[in-house]
Amino acid sequence: MNAPENQNISDTREHHQLRAADAANLLHPWADLSALGDESAMVIKSAKGVHVYDSNGKQYLDAIGGMWCITLGYGNEELIEAMAQQAREMVYYTPFGDMSSSPAARLAKKLAELAPGDLNRAHFTTCGSTAIDSAVRTAHYYFAAQGRPEKRHVLSRRNAYHGSTYLAASLCGKLADRTLFHYEADFVHHLASPEYDPDIATESADERLSALLEDMESEINRIGAENIACFVAEPILASGGVLVPPEGYHKATLDLCHKYDILYISDEVVTAFGRLGHFFASEVHFDILPDMIVAAKGISSGYQPLGVVMISDRIIDSIKANAPEDNPVFSNGYTYSGHPVACATAIANINIMERDNICAHVQELGPYFLSELRKLSSSPIVYTVRGHHLMACVECWTGEEAGPTERNIALAQRVDQYCEEAGVLVRPYENLCIMSPPLIVDRDDVDRIVTVMGDAIKRAQRDLDMGELD
Amino acid sequence: MNAPENQNISDTREHHQLRAADAANLLHPWADLSALGDESAMVIKSAKGVHVYDSNGKQYLDAIGGMWCITLGYGNEELIEAMAQQAREMVYYTPFGDMSSSPAARLAKKLAELAPGDLNRAHFTTCGSTAIDSAVRTAHYYFAAQGRPEKRHVLSRRNAYHGSTYLAASLCGKLADRTLFHYEADFVHHLASPEYDPDIATESADERLSALLEDMESEINRIGAENIACFVAEPILASGGVLVPPEGYHKATLDLCHKYDILYISDEVVTAFGRLGHFFASEVHFDILPDMIVAAKGISSGYQPLGVVMISDRIIDSIKANAPEDNPVFSNGYTYSGHPVACATAIANINIMERDNICAHVQELGPYFLSELRKLSSSPIVYTVRGHHLMACVECWTGEEAGPTERNIALAQRVDQYCEEAGVLVRPYENLCIMSPPLIVDRDDVDRIVTVMGDAIKRAQRDLDMGELD
Repeated sequence: MNAPENQNISDTREHHQLRAADAANLLHPWADLSALGDESAMVIKSAKGVHVYDSNGKQYLDAIGGMWCITLGYGNEELIEAMAQQAREMVYYTPFGDMSSSPAARLAKKLAELAPGDLNRAHFTTCGSTAIDSAVRTAHYYFAAQGRPEKRHVLSRRNAYHGSTYLAASLCGKLADRTLFHYEADFVHHLASPEYDPDIATESADERLSALLEDMESEINRIGAENIACFVAEPILASGGVLVPPEGYHKATLDLCHKYDILYISDEVVTAFGRLGHFFASEVHFDILPDMIVAAKGISSGYQPLGVVMISDRIIDSIKANAPEDNPVFSNGYTYSGHPVACATAIANINIMERDNICAHVQELGPYFLSELRKLSSSPIVYTVRGHHLMACVECWTGEEAGPTERNIALAQRVDQYCEEAGVLVRPYENLCIMSPPLIVDRDDVDRIVTVMGDAIKRAQRDLDMGELD
Repeated sequence: MNAPENQNISDTREHHQLRAADAANLLHPWADLSALGDESAMVIKSAKGVHVYDSNGKQYLDAIGGMWCITLGYGNEELIEAMAQQAREMVYYTPFGDMSSSPAARLAKKLAELAPGDLNRAHFTTCGSTAIDSAVRTAHYYFAAQGRPEKRHVLSRRNAYHGSTYLAASLCGKLADRTLFHYEADFVHHLASPEYDPDIATESADERLSALLEDMESEINRIGAENIACFVAEPILASGGVLVPPEGYHKATLDLCHKYDILYISDEVVTAFGRLGHFFASEVHFDILPDMIVAAKGISSGYQPLGVVMISDRIIDSIKANAPEDNPVFSNGYTYSGHPVACATAIANINIMERDNICAHVQELGPYFLSELRKLSSSPIVYTVRGHHLMACVECWTGEEAGPTERNIALAQRVDQYCEEAGVLVRPYENLCIMSPPLIVDRDDVDRIVTVMGDAIKRAQRDLDMGELD
């Protein structure tokens, strides 16, 4: 073993080699192309519990849970053991057709128990994007099997985030994410962004709700309900900025879907598996039973790539009954659908969550986290604080104009930078500081996040006051 | 520990429970909807080396490598250790923007060394489908950044298989895979299927090649080269039936792409990572340097979901130079892009392949496998045997009409069934028995596969002769 001093030299050399390899050979998701090739990457080297360490050895409290992903924390030995044991027993076999595996079958059964209502059929994929893609394709199949192939249009919403396949990216409604790629525009439509923040609203929740429903119904009538297959919606728009719709919105939009025979696909990639204190949030928090629920991320605590579409028996029965006799094949799915190692990890994840009452912990800690965070609203550079249990967001502004202006974005980046200096990671999105800590954070961790964030806000405000923001 | 007798009872109970859960709660890729809900699944329960075991405890030699996936065999302790060690060290962190990890950076560097020419930039995804989807989207970005967004059409081929996202599925050209789903038909076009089998051909390879190139060039002219972004092609059409194009086809189609400024995307999901005896096959076997190569499956020996697009420096430099100043973001990629556990597994996989000379082993064993398999051509029910190193295919017919007729399909299924009874898995595709054994098979394994296949063919032929096929 090297002496600490040599260890540091060796670490530094490795640190530089990693950044050089990253700069020369990697194209990251959402890479800043103007910086491509610069050796500027932050390399996360190790992680344990709620902490991560960069390649310089600096420790950070991870207030974003990897990115909505890590729920049981890093380095969980039980999850790692489940992963390794399954890899030893049976690492992979094709899931196509009539070939199955024990972890996929057992996880499907468990998910059917956890999911609301008659959402009893699991169609596994590799991530949230492929699950959304498959859910929309399933809606297409459902109506085409009924002899209505023209009923294939899809309703999404502005500010939505649904992933990065060609189809999933086309469903996304964040303007900033629309770049030079090509997007499907023939059958994908975007309704108004449904957020309602009572702390900053100039209209009542009821007024807002009415306007949103009017927008939705008029868009349905414009396109023609006979042409619309499904409505795809996150209960809370996560990457769009933790945008919470007004009370009653979910139920009312589901009612509209029922009225017009449009399938409701709930994108719970972020909200499922404990982030809002329950395994699934659609029914418990938002009073809806969707036709399909899409999940990923927290399903394996981020330890393994895994996505799933939970499909209602009603949809499945219709598909089975109406499939053509001469080719009754559901030709959708992936080589890695139901990968045994990923499914075994997810089963262990669910078992631990149940045994350790993780959902109850979030139900208790979530409101405390938000109430502490809301105290930061008194700062003049905090426009608003919003969220739901362990997903939260601080929106910054210079006091001039709200929203993602250049100066507001610079201000949020300053807050982020000061948090990072103080050892807390809260990566910013536009003029927002978004947080989604591991579900196992305790009261002390929450206090530390809020304290560091508060100090960072004060420092950023001082920069603004001193004219040192630009 | 139970006595063997009780063990069997317990195994049987678990076997039934698994099949019941599968029937009630899983929707498999390419599920037969007419059998959905039947407890007919074959559950693969354990696996070691080149063998898998079903939930009844029956052993099979796995002649399909999971499904083009398992290259180093099952239960490889070094791969499992690499997986667990990385999960312990740092299981996951977001790869978005400027966040990196050691395994992703190191794997990208290694892939740049292994890939031909200037294919030095790795864009990771979760599987082959998402890698194809991302490659086509990258071609879209490339031309749009040059001010040519209308140059977005895509050339694929009939009989191609490229995956299962909406876009990837639309690129597929197998008629049997086209079911009631919706497919992109505005910018996706299918050229003629390019197979050429000298053993059954009625025209010369040169005649065939000329016809294929004429078809391609006339389709380019019909669509307009100014509207075409890319050509997507498997070097050998794998799931389409191990279809090998005529000599010179790859180079000539690349020349056409160069002539018309069309990017060439080589889909090496099956052919890369040793199946043809090299890490990448495009240049070594087919004399082409594509603009992008897509890989998956063998990259991790199937142990982890992982896909990658290798992009040429030429493409990347152009994208970087032409990205818009006001939003230079490459808004494509996945939560699980470059997942540390998957990348660490892939690094270990490559290291083992290099240390144990796996490619040299395939170079030696591949020709032997094919020459032994070709001996089966003498059977009247074998229409032809074709392949390339460790990907091979026996095409069955009743002697009447070639191709996937009902009776030919029934015949191939009979061959498959007799192989399965004798303990070798060679799942059929239409009237084909496709094989892609783990790369670590030895001469004895190959002899066993060929012997069992030969016996199965004899039994199926007897059934046909006795009128017992239907």
